[in-house]
Amino acid sequence: MENLVKYVWIVFCASIVALGFAFFFYRRMLKEDEGTPTMREIAAHVRKGAMAYLKQQYKVVTIVFVILAVLFLVMSIFHLQNGVVWFAFLTGGFFSGLAGFLGMKTATYASARTANGARQSLNKGLQVAFRSGAVMGLTVVGLALLDVSAWFLILNGTGLLELVGEHATLTTITTTMLTFGMGASTQALFARVGGGIYTKAADVGADLVGKTEYNIPEDDPRNPATIADNVGDNVGDVAGMGADLYESYAGSILSTMALGAAAFATIGAEMQMKSILAPMMIAAVGVILSVIGIFIVRTKEEASMTQLLKALSRGTNTAAILIAVATFGIMYVLFKDSTDIVWWQVSLSVVVGLLAGVIIGKSTEYYTSQSFKPTQKVAESSQTGPATVIISGIGLGMISTVIPVLTIGVAIILAFLCANGFQIEFNAINLSKGLYGIGIAAVGMLSTLGITLATDAYGPIADNAGGNAEMSGLDPEVRKRTDALDALGNTTAATGKGFAIGSAALTALALLASYVEEIKMALERIGTSVLDLGDGRMVDTANASLIDFMEYYNVSLMNPKVLVGVFIGSMMAFLFCGLTMNAVGRAAQKMVEEVRRQFQEIKGILTGEGTPDYARCVAISTKGAQHEMLLPSILAILAPIVTGLILGVAGVLGLLVGGLGAGFVLAIFMANAGGAWDNAKKYVEEGNFGGKGSDNHKATVVGDTVGDPFKDTSGPSLNILIKLMSMVSIVMAGLTVAVHLL
Amino acid sequence: MENLVKYVWIVFCASIVALGFAFFFYRRMLKEDEGTPTMREIAAHVRKGAMAYLKQQYKVVTIVFVILAVLFLVMSIFHLQNGVVWFAFLTGGFFSGLAGFLGMKTATYASARTANGARQSLNKGLQVAFRSGAVMGLTVVGLALLDVSAWFLILNGTGLLELVGEHATLTTITTTMLTFGMGASTQALFARVGGGIYTKAADVGADLVGKTEYNIPEDDPRNPATIADNVGDNVGDVAGMGADLYESYAGSILSTMALGAAAFATIGAEMQMKSILAPMMIAAVGVILSVIGIFIVRTKEEASMTQLLKALSRGTNTAAILIAVATFGIMYVLFKDSTDIVWWQVSLSVVVGLLAGVIIGKSTEYYTSQSFKPTQKVAESSQTGPATVIISGIGLGMISTVIPVLTIGVAIILAFLCANGFQIEFNAINLSKGLYGIGIAAVGMLSTLGITLATDAYGPIADNAGGNAEMSGLDPEVRKRTDALDALGNTTAATGKGFAIGSAALTALALLASYVEEIKMALERIGTSVLDLGDGRMVDTANASLIDFMEYYNVSLMNPKVLVGVFIGSMMAFLFCGLTMNAVGRAAQKMVEEVRRQFQEIKGILTGEGTPDYARCVAISTKGAQHEMLLPSILAILAPIVTGLILGVAGVLGLLVGGLGAGFVLAIFMANAGGAWDNAKKYVEEGNFGGKGSDNHKATVVGDTVGDPFKDTSGPSLNILIKLMSMVSIVMAGLTVAVHLL
Repeated sequence: MENLVKYVWIVFCASIVALGFAFFFYRRMLKEDEGTPTMREIAAHVRKGAMAYLKQQYKVVTIVFVILAVLFLVMSIFHLQNGVVWFAFLTGGFFSGLAGFLGMKTATYASARTANGARQSLNKGLQVAFRSGAVMGLTVVGLALLDVSAWFLILNGTGLLELVGEHATLTTITTTMLTFGMGASTQALFARVGGGIYTKAADVGADLVGKTEYNIPEDDPRNPATIADNVGDNVGDVAGMGADLYESYAGSILSTMALGAAAFATIGAEMQMKSILAPMMIAAVGVILSVIGIFIVRTKEEASMTQLLKALSRGTNTAAILIAVATFGIMYVLFKDSTDIVWWQVSLSVVVGLLAGVIIGKSTEYYTSQSFKPTQKVAESSQTGPATVIISGIGLGMISTVIPVLTIGVAIILAFLCANGFQIEFNAINLSKGLYGIGIAAVGMLSTLGITLATDAYGPIADNAGGNAEMSGLDPEVRKRTDALDALGNTTAATGKGFAIGSAALTALALLASYVEEIKMALERIGTSVLDLGDGRMVDTANASLIDFMEYYNVSLMNPKVLVGVFIGSMMAFLFCGLTMNAVGRAAQKMVEEVRRQFQEIKGILTGEGTPDYARCVAISTKGAQHEMLLPSILAILAPIVTGLILGVAGVLGLLVGGLGAGFVLAIFMANAGGAWDNAKKYVEEGNFGGKGSDNHKATVVGDTVGDPFKDTSGPSLNILIKLMSMVSIVMAGLTVAVHLL
Repeated sequence: MENLVKYVWIVFCASIVALGFAFFFYRRMLKEDEGTPTMREIAAHVRKGAMAYLKQQYKVVTIVFVILAVLFLVMSIFHLQNGVVWFAFLTGGFFSGLAGFLGMKTATYASARTANGARQSLNKGLQVAFRSGAVMGLTVVGLALLDVSAWFLILNGTGLLELVGEHATLTTITTTMLTFGMGASTQALFARVGGGIYTKAADVGADLVGKTEYNIPEDDPRNPATIADNVGDNVGDVAGMGADLYESYAGSILSTMALGAAAFATIGAEMQMKSILAPMMIAAVGVILSVIGIFIVRTKEEASMTQLLKALSRGTNTAAILIAVATFGIMYVLFKDSTDIVWWQVSLSVVVGLLAGVIIGKSTEYYTSQSFKPTQKVAESSQTGPATVIISGIGLGMISTVIPVLTIGVAIILAFLCANGFQIEFNAINLSKGLYGIGIAAVGMLSTLGITLATDAYGPIADNAGGNAEMSGLDPEVRKRTDALDALGNTTAATGKGFAIGSAALTALALLASYVEEIKMALERIGTSVLDLGDGRMVDTANASLIDFMEYYNVSLMNPKVLVGVFIGSMMAFLFCGLTMNAVGRAAQKMVEEVRRQFQEIKGILTGEGTPDYARCVAISTKGAQHEMLLPSILAILAPIVTGLILGVAGVLGLLVGGLGAGFVLAIFMANAGGAWDNAKKYVEEGNFGGKGSDNHKATVVGDTVGDPFKDTSGPSLNILIKLMSMVSIVMAGLTVAVHLL
């Protein structure tokens, strides 16, 4: 055992390495020139606005965190939860927020520098933006691994759990650590929803008046909502995404650790420890490979777009291929002597996860890029007006769910079978091992997040650089270059989204099993040591398998409680999207009124003689986002608690599965429909079907505007919603077990 | 037993009474004057187009039916299904199609007569339209009860089942009869999808060019797509709805009969027979009460809108209250001596179903009527353009899923508990009785379909009457009256939709249990007489309970096959909607091109001097609908078969639950968003936010156009999809049990 703990230290060191490189890239970026005084000034405005928003957001979130932490503390007093949970929860939230904050801080420093780099050359711009994106990527994975490894070392090495009256078994340790995942999820949901509402209210508001009514270009300094729009890119697309992926990454590792500890509990601590180490080690090696990949990304001075894309792909592909190879090595080292897990088989589960992520990413690209038929068809439908643009975009989005769902379906089955030695027979051991395989497939999918996130985060930086270039009145050539970088970012972002959405489905599955594991502990905690399975069999709670719990709580599809849970879960996904859609609509409407007012009341805005009141628009977005993010987020936390109190464990599992099924599909639908609308507009702007300024173009602008909250607010929040509901259920399991109406 | 069979004869007689009154109303309607020669001519055009379409549609559908019937025949040769199924399937399809055909025939004769009646007075118009709607209502329930009772009498009284080598137990009889439900569902899906694509392609096409580009009013004879539009109302809203509700009605009765036979199989044939009789008797009494309700609907000669609405409500409410009272009587007669079912408790299940339908209807009304805040807010958002209209409509639709889902959730639990004597404990007996309660709640919800469908079907008749009045150049006052009737129809239709959607969820749940029952028979048929439950218990297949089967096939939420099934089921709902949305988009685009072409090429159309080529538009809609309806419908049939062949029983149950969860919520979302957009446009047309012709109005027209396929094509088809997938699974159970990969 002791010699295995050294591996955790390796993980800890890898996290330090990641953070070190993040700091290195950050320093290097700061050394770049920020350009003209105007560029600096605008960047400072955006930075100030973004920081002010984040500060405001953290205030609100802190209140929610304190309330929840107190609740967990109270629960621990009543033996409904252990005494470490409240603190683990807080650290998860803190680190998730920190990841978003640091990423955003970097982005706000990088945008003017990227614009300035683009004044030199496309390649220079790419370098600055991509390396700044890498700060975010490495910060996210570094902080996550730091939190995971440090907590493990503390709970395993010190007597903290014994201190609060728990046995420090590996099962208890890993399940306790899951609550740190709940902290991350809660923070991520607020960041995504708040940031998403902020950015889209500003974006939609700026476009509706500026572009549509006054025919002035995007990011024009005459538009009062411009600064708010650029702030929004930072708080939504950067800080929101950072917190989101921190949550995905940490969640997949934590749930797989918990599954490993549970699956091999009867076999012995060493096997448990190894299965806990596997996901951490894959992640740690993935971090190092990501750093290597980041360094690989470089092109010739006068590179074409295709060459740029190739440069980025080379980085991500190298990292992905190397991690696939390295996985076999890691698994060999850990499991070469094991008969319970065959090292190359479980390695295949990881590869399955990686491949599934790639396929989903390719499918996203196919359905949302204007280089392919589907999006071109949406653009074509603009010939019959905005209504048909909307209809065809919705049709496209719905149809685009097929490949990702089938891919995940096949991946689930394959990862399951690979990990349990291709045993189709359904028994407790095969099930536990198989679920572990599904969890580790998710870890594999996210293992190279360090670099995929870098290619993802660099998009909004390039976008902001374009805004800065436009507002500073730089040469149009600069804007063209930043636009090219931005477009490139859209393609790589599609792959990134594939990983995020795919891993969410797999992680959520793994969390279902963790929930049942937590139920087991909760039962033991309240003194239910024997389960009466109803068919005459009595099982010790401590030795009960997942299947026994399914029987004990009648979690079959014939139980009306399960079915009602499924209905409510499906409904929650829609309700959540509806609330966030409306929130964007309302906030955008206020923004429109304000921008219209300024155009009418402040003289000389349109001629460039008067200065718009940027600050008021920033204030409107901030207030709107803060006000509107609370209800959907709190509902997401309450739904599993209330369902548990009424319908019990079976109802909660139904809720989670219903939310997962409908939420996953709805998320793909919304993301792809939104992406296709965006690019259909770009396709028209490129000169097709009448080009910029035509009626067809206006019709596609309507699609793009509708797509904004689809793809940047409601859609991406669903991933987090699914996992947050699972996390809340896990943390609240003690309450559900102790108190339920039916 | 024999004295119980007489009750079935009562049901049979009730069906004859319903059909008799349908014929009576039909004859009376025919006696009305059809108006001026122009009116007659236009009506004849529409009738011809509608009949031509239906003929074409039935040709295509017949091919599908023949293929499926042959497949069932082949399956029966291999003992994978019994030898009556193929024929039962055909009759279900035939009667469903017949119900739609007769309803539509009536509607096409009634529209000119309604317009002519409206020339006299509002009340006269209402009488003609409503009584014609009643023909449809009574035909649907009459044919359904005729088919159900006749089949039961044949299978029970003759040796037909023995002839094909089956034991003619009540369980076999009722499960065999379910396949007649599959026939009805298949027919209904084609009717809804084909009709839905037809009507919306014509509607969207007519509006986009006529209203938006040329600013001519709706139903203007100068618009080449006008006749196609009016034909569409008949084939989609009348024939499609008729087939749809026939399927819902028959499906709820058949599945409840099957549940009753299964639930009381161990108690004895008499109890089984009584529980089979209960749903039939409620339906039979409901038919008679519906006729009474229809006669109650009459108003003073110069009635106001409110009085008209009251008149209709009086009819439906009287029928609903009387059926609630009568239910207690029926249950008392059947179960007064029973200790297994307490008569007043199971009656409460029926009342729960009735109430749930009413609540969902009210909620639909609240979210889609311009008298209430939500739709007014959508209208208000038109001030910032079409994009915000779409965003707010989607937001509204998504949020509007909450009340229906919670209502159905509560109804499921209550109906379950009422029927099993309020036993929370989960065991085989409580479960079977409880599921029977859920089934009978669905029957209760639909028991007064005869009259609710009359109030539903009269809407499109009034709509068509308006078209006829417009095209015949009648006094604008006539059009105003038909518009008032149409608006009234929208309100009552909301209630009708509530019943349709709510009953679909309950029926689908009941069908899950029937599926497991069919699995049992399939196992016996292939000779698996003992089940090894894996935990050491061995159970005779014949005596195995639903819970045993859940254990045998591991249908728990931890089984990856179940979870993959849930994903695929959720995806199917979206894919189906995506395909039908795109189908409408494509067909509408062709229509737009044709209408534009005619306006440009045929001289004098706009001045009224040239005659548009109506027939070509009719042909385009017909061809588009026929072409586009096949893929989604065939996918719906194939999905459960393929899932079964790969993932087996557990996967199929997952698929059904996933499809039910996501499909139910998606259906409400689409129906309500579409309804709200429609009425938001009407609200603006009533003079709010700028009124007709303003930019705001144009923005709401975009919403309305998007909403058309939402509420009339994709949304309403989902109900059928959910049930068809269940029905296919049931009929294909033999194959799934015999052959599956995993």
